[in-house]
Amino acid sequence: MRFNENLQRLKTYEAGKPIELVVREYGIDEKDIIKLASNENPYGTSPKVVKKVQENAHKMYLYPDDSMYELKAALAKRFGVSAEEIIIGAGSDQVLEFCARAVLNEHTSVLMSKITFAMYEIYALQQGSKIIRSSCYRHDLDEFYDLYQKHNPSIVHICTPNNPTGDAIDKEYLYSFLEKVKDPLVVVDGAYMEYAAYKDPKKLIPPRELIAMYPNAIYLGTFSKAYGLGGMRVGYGIAQKEIIQQLYKLRPPFNITTLSLLAATEALKDEEFVQRAIEKNFAQMDRFIHFAMQNELEFIDSYTNFITYLLPQNINAKDLANALLRRGIIVRDLSSYGMNALRITIGTPEQNSIFFEKCKEVFDEYKR
Amino acid sequence: MRFNENLQRLKTYEAGKPIELVVREYGIDEKDIIKLASNENPYGTSPKVVKKVQENAHKMYLYPDDSMYELKAALAKRFGVSAEEIIIGAGSDQVLEFCARAVLNEHTSVLMSKITFAMYEIYALQQGSKIIRSSCYRHDLDEFYDLYQKHNPSIVHICTPNNPTGDAIDKEYLYSFLEKVKDPLVVVDGAYMEYAAYKDPKKLIPPRELIAMYPNAIYLGTFSKAYGLGGMRVGYGIAQKEIIQQLYKLRPPFNITTLSLLAATEALKDEEFVQRAIEKNFAQMDRFIHFAMQNELEFIDSYTNFITYLLPQNINAKDLANALLRRGIIVRDLSSYGMNALRITIGTPEQNSIFFEKCKEVFDEYKR
Repeated sequence: MRFNENLQRLKTYEAGKPIELVVREYGIDEKDIIKLASNENPYGTSPKVVKKVQENAHKMYLYPDDSMYELKAALAKRFGVSAEEIIIGAGSDQVLEFCARAVLNEHTSVLMSKITFAMYEIYALQQGSKIIRSSCYRHDLDEFYDLYQKHNPSIVHICTPNNPTGDAIDKEYLYSFLEKVKDPLVVVDGAYMEYAAYKDPKKLIPPRELIAMYPNAIYLGTFSKAYGLGGMRVGYGIAQKEIIQQLYKLRPPFNITTLSLLAATEALKDEEFVQRAIEKNFAQMDRFIHFAMQNELEFIDSYTNFITYLLPQNINAKDLANALLRRGIIVRDLSSYGMNALRITIGTPEQNSIFFEKCKEVFDEYKR
Repeated sequence: MRFNENLQRLKTYEAGKPIELVVREYGIDEKDIIKLASNENPYGTSPKVVKKVQENAHKMYLYPDDSMYELKAALAKRFGVSAEEIIIGAGSDQVLEFCARAVLNEHTSVLMSKITFAMYEIYALQQGSKIIRSSCYRHDLDEFYDLYQKHNPSIVHICTPNNPTGDAIDKEYLYSFLEKVKDPLVVVDGAYMEYAAYKDPKKLIPPRELIAMYPNAIYLGTFSKAYGLGGMRVGYGIAQKEIIQQLYKLRPPFNITTLSLLAATEALKDEEFVQRAIEKNFAQMDRFIHFAMQNELEFIDSYTNFITYLLPQNINAKDLANALLRRGIIVRDLSSYGMNALRITIGTPEQNSIFFEKCKEVFDEYKR
C-alpha cells in the first residue's frame, strides 16, 4: 500500500485543549475549569436554540435535509443574497477545504499573512500547494499585492478580523486591493466579523456587496463564535453561483447534522442574544486592556472575542499557559505560530476575574 | 480563476428525499409522510440517548473534545482494539473520503462491485482515479481477483452487506480473497453489519480479527443505521495504526459535533435497544417477502434493514416511486444505479402496513 506523497508534508492542527482533557490529565473538577482557549461564546447558546434542540432531539435518527432548505433561506434573507450563492460547511473550515480542493494542486501557490488561521496552510499542503506568506502578521495588502504579482497565487487568504491576532482591516482597504487582484480566488474569512462590525462599522465586509463587486471573492462566516454554536459545526461560504456550484461538487452528502441545521436556523432568529453577547464582550475587553497595562504587557488591539497578549522575553508563553492550566484555566499558547504570546478568549465577568487573579498569582511567583 | 480538472468529471450524490422536501413540494402534512428511503432505524433513537442529548444541549457552544477520548475508548472496548486503531468520521462516509484522499490520485484505479454504494465512485473521481467494476452486483470475489490482477487497483471496496442490494458475503469467502490480495487498501464497509450478524453469524466480519490477519484492510462501521443516529453523522474506521495515522493527517479538526460525540458514546451503552430494533426488523422483513411473493415481484435476499424489489419490465421504478411519493411514501428508486428496482427501508409495523396498502393501490391502478 502506498500513501500519497503530500501526506508526508502535513502538520496536524493543534486544537485548543478541551475541558474533558484537563479533567483527565490534571484531575481538576469540571466545574472548576475555565476555558478561554477556543473563542467560544462564553455566554453559551441562546436559550431559544437550546429549547429547539431539546424538543427535536428525538429526530436524531433521521438524516438531515441535504438541500438545507431552511437554513439557506434564512441565511439568504439575512445577507440579501440568493440560496444558490450559499454553501454550508461543517464549520467555515469545511468551506475552506472545498476551496483548497477545488482550486489547488501541486502546481499552485497560496498567499496568506505571516500569522493567520492555521488551517489555510494545512488544507493547501494537503493539495501539494506552495505557501507564500507576508512578512508581517497584520494584513499589509501592499505587500500582499507585491507577492501576488511575483507568485501569481491561486488563492489569497484574507482573515479579517485575523485569528489569532485579533486585528482587522477596513473594508475600503480590502476593496482597493480587490480592484487590482482579479485572478485568484480571494477567501475573505469573517469568522469574527460580528464583533468587528460592532466595534467599528468600517471593518464590516457585507457579503452581498463583496461578491457583487468582486466575482472572484468568497466570504466565509460561522455559527461557531458570536452565534454560540462552536460544538455544532456550521459555517457558510457566500460567493457568486459559478463558484458555489464548483465547491458543491466536493461537498459530501449530509455534511451538517440534523440538530445542527435546526440550531443554526433558530440561532439566526435570536439576534438579540448575539448582540448582547457582543456588547458584553467589549465591556469585558476593557478589563483585559486595563490588566495588560497594569502588568506592562503589550497586546494587539482586538476586534474579536479574544485578546492577544504579547509577552516580554522573561515570560515564556508555554510556561505561563501551563501555569494557568494547573490552576484550571485553559488559554491558547501561540508558540506554535512563532509568537511568544497568549491568546485569551474574553470570558464572562466571573471567569475573567478568576483569570486576572490566577494570572497575577503566576506573575507574582515569577517575581520571587 | 481556474478550477481543478477532476471537478468536471464529478457526479453529485443523490440523497434520499427528506421529509421536509415532500412537505414543501407535495403539500403533504409532515405526520402523513412515511420515509422508507434512507435506511434509518424506524424505531428512532434510544430514549437514553435522546435524554443524554437533551440534558447536554446547553453545551452546544463548546467545541467538541477533538481527541474523542470517550467515544474512542467505548469503541475500543466494544471491538477489542486499541484507540490508536480507530478513526472517527462524520459518518463512515468521511472515513471513505480519507481513504480515497490518502491513497488515490490520477495514476491509480479503484475496484468495486457493479452496483454498490455510490460514494466509492464519487470520492475516487474526486481524486482523478479510474473506476473498475465487476460485472455482477453480487461480490463475486473470483472476478474481483481477476480484475485485481489485471488492473492492480489501489483500493478494493467490499460492501457487506452491500448497499443498495442487501446481499452479504461469508467471512471465510472474504478471508480467502484477502489471503491473495496484499497490495491494495481493502475497505470493508460494514454499515449494515449488525443486521447481517443477527441473521447469519457466518456473515460477521470481526474488525479485530480482520485487521490482525490482514494489515491492508480497514473496517468501516456507522452509528447511522442500527444505532439510530443517521442525523448525527458518526462513523468509524478500524485498521492497524500505521493506516490510521495516515488517515488522521486528512481529518479536519472538530469533525464530529459535541452532541454527536455524546450521542454515539451513549448509544453504545444501550445495546438492548439496538438488538430489539434488529429483531423487529427481521420479523417485519418476512412481511415484505410475503408481499413480494403475493405480487409476483422478485427481490434480493437481504441482510440489512431494507429490501430491494426487482421490478418487472411493465413497472417502471421511477413511476412507481413517484406514485408512492404522491401518497406520502418515500422509497428509493434505483434507476440511477442502472436497476429497475426500488430499495425500501423496513419500517415499523404500522408504516409497513400503509406501504403495502398504498403499493397495492398503485399496482391495482396499473392493472386497470
